[in-house]
Amino acid sequence: MALYNVRLLTNAQRARIDVVLVSPRNPLNIGAAARAMVNFGFAQLSVVAPFEAHWREAKSAVGAPELLASAREFPSLAEAVAECTYVMGTGTLTHRKAQQPVILLPDLAPTLDSALDSGGRVALVFGPEKHGLTRDDLAFCHALVTIPTEPTQPSMNLGQAVAVCLYELTRAHAERLDERSDRTKLSNTPESPTSGALDRMADLIEQTMERSGYSPRIMEAANRHDLRLLLRRLQWSEADARRALGLFRRVLWRIQRSGRKRQ
Amino acid sequence: MALYNVRLLTNAQRARIDVVLVSPRNPLNIGAAARAMVNFGFAQLSVVAPFEAHWREAKSAVGAPELLASAREFPSLAEAVAECTYVMGTGTLTHRKAQQPVILLPDLAPTLDSALDSGGRVALVFGPEKHGLTRDDLAFCHALVTIPTEPTQPSMNLGQAVAVCLYELTRAHAERLDERSDRTKLSNTPESPTSGALDRMADLIEQTMERSGYSPRIMEAANRHDLRLLLRRLQWSEADARRALGLFRRVLWRIQRSGRKRQ
Repeated sequence: MALYNVRLLTNAQRARIDVVLVSPRNPLNIGAAARAMVNFGFAQLSVVAPFEAHWREAKSAVGAPELLASAREFPSLAEAVAECTYVMGTGTLTHRKAQQPVILLPDLAPTLDSALDSGGRVALVFGPEKHGLTRDDLAFCHALVTIPTEPTQPSMNLGQAVAVCLYELTRAHAERLDERSDRTKLSNTPESPTSGALDRMADLIEQTMERSGYSPRIMEAANRHDLRLLLRRLQWSEADARRALGLFRRVLWRIQRSGRKRQ
Repeated sequence: MALYNVRLLTNAQRARIDVVLVSPRNPLNIGAAARAMVNFGFAQLSVVAPFEAHWREAKSAVGAPELLASAREFPSLAEAVAECTYVMGTGTLTHRKAQQPVILLPDLAPTLDSALDSGGRVALVFGPEKHGLTRDDLAFCHALVTIPTEPTQPSMNLGQAVAVCLYELTRAHAERLDERSDRTKLSNTPESPTSGALDRMADLIEQTMERSGYSPRIMEAANRHDLRLLLRRLQWSEADARRALGLFRRVLWRIQRSGRKRQ
């Protein structure tokens, strides 16, 4: 009895999934992540603020020298995910309460389907070895995916966590394809705005808040954090996000102009 | 949504599954395997003819010192699996023809069920880093499990392969838990704002648009209509809607105030 008809994600779909490592400390882990990516057919690696300058020479990247050579390095997570329409953080929830939807790893593939179907880019973000993604990192994530580990020892090695996530995507997507073959696929899922577009909107709204005296200065950092999360909760279409951006641009211009006139 | 109907792996069942590493060369990989075992709730590690004598001190065994201390060392695979009723080799089939049944990893859990049901012990056997299990090793295996990797780079890192296999065995368990929590999940979906609250927001935004000269008068009716639709597309929580209302109230107040001053 064949319970599963395993088919891999299409190359086109895998080419739209970025693996993003935030501040990895040990180049061996970067190499291990790269190796797992090649094992499961993924190609786009982004490294944010790595601890070691020579991470591209990691010996653990067996079979993955080309992937490491073409990997991109960014100074910040914001820049690394700027082109992505769906950003998925990874981690455990032992020490904090989630501020966005939490998805168990076995449910990841169906969650990514709509993002991939609409032609967007997806980022799968892994935090540093010691403490995982910070609260600030998570403000760039639409959702958090968590690997079902034992509560007594939930924290996985970075390279192993990457391998398990990519295996799950390879494995489970196959079955979704199977399931969907009966139904007709929704063809008009709206395009989502990129993470960069949401950040530009957040910047404009922040300036608007500041100029209109919306929040006391002591609250500004907290509000900025909440604002990023809120904008990601709202599930914008690309067109709606563009209109909201236009409105806030105009509002800010109006407030600034009146501010100047009063002086 | 239950995609799989796989039987739950109880703690008692996991206690009857041995992880067996044959001639591992790098203690870091033994430590990584141990760490993954603790992450996924497995306890019985056997090491056959290890290359390094001091493998129990592997630094990579984060959270797994007790598991390493209680691991058993054997001179041969035959002795390591002597007590097992079902021995499952792992590896790829690139360089040889299988001489026993081959199971894809996603089918592993159901395959082990009958062995575990009958009260037997199961061994999951991993070969050395360089070449995997030999033909002689495979002679001790009832079946071969293979991870669905890319044909161009099928060979996984040992620690990552162990993690992926144990995740797969745990995965069934996770989905069953997930199914159960689905039934109680409805109570904590965030409350949605009322249509009236969305209309109050629309009114405020409309006034803001008007006061800031966002749209020509001829466009106002069309914009009002689109704005109402847009606000409904965004899927607000009640709390987020309240905050957006507060922000627009403040912005409008600020614009009106500056307008008065200029007169």
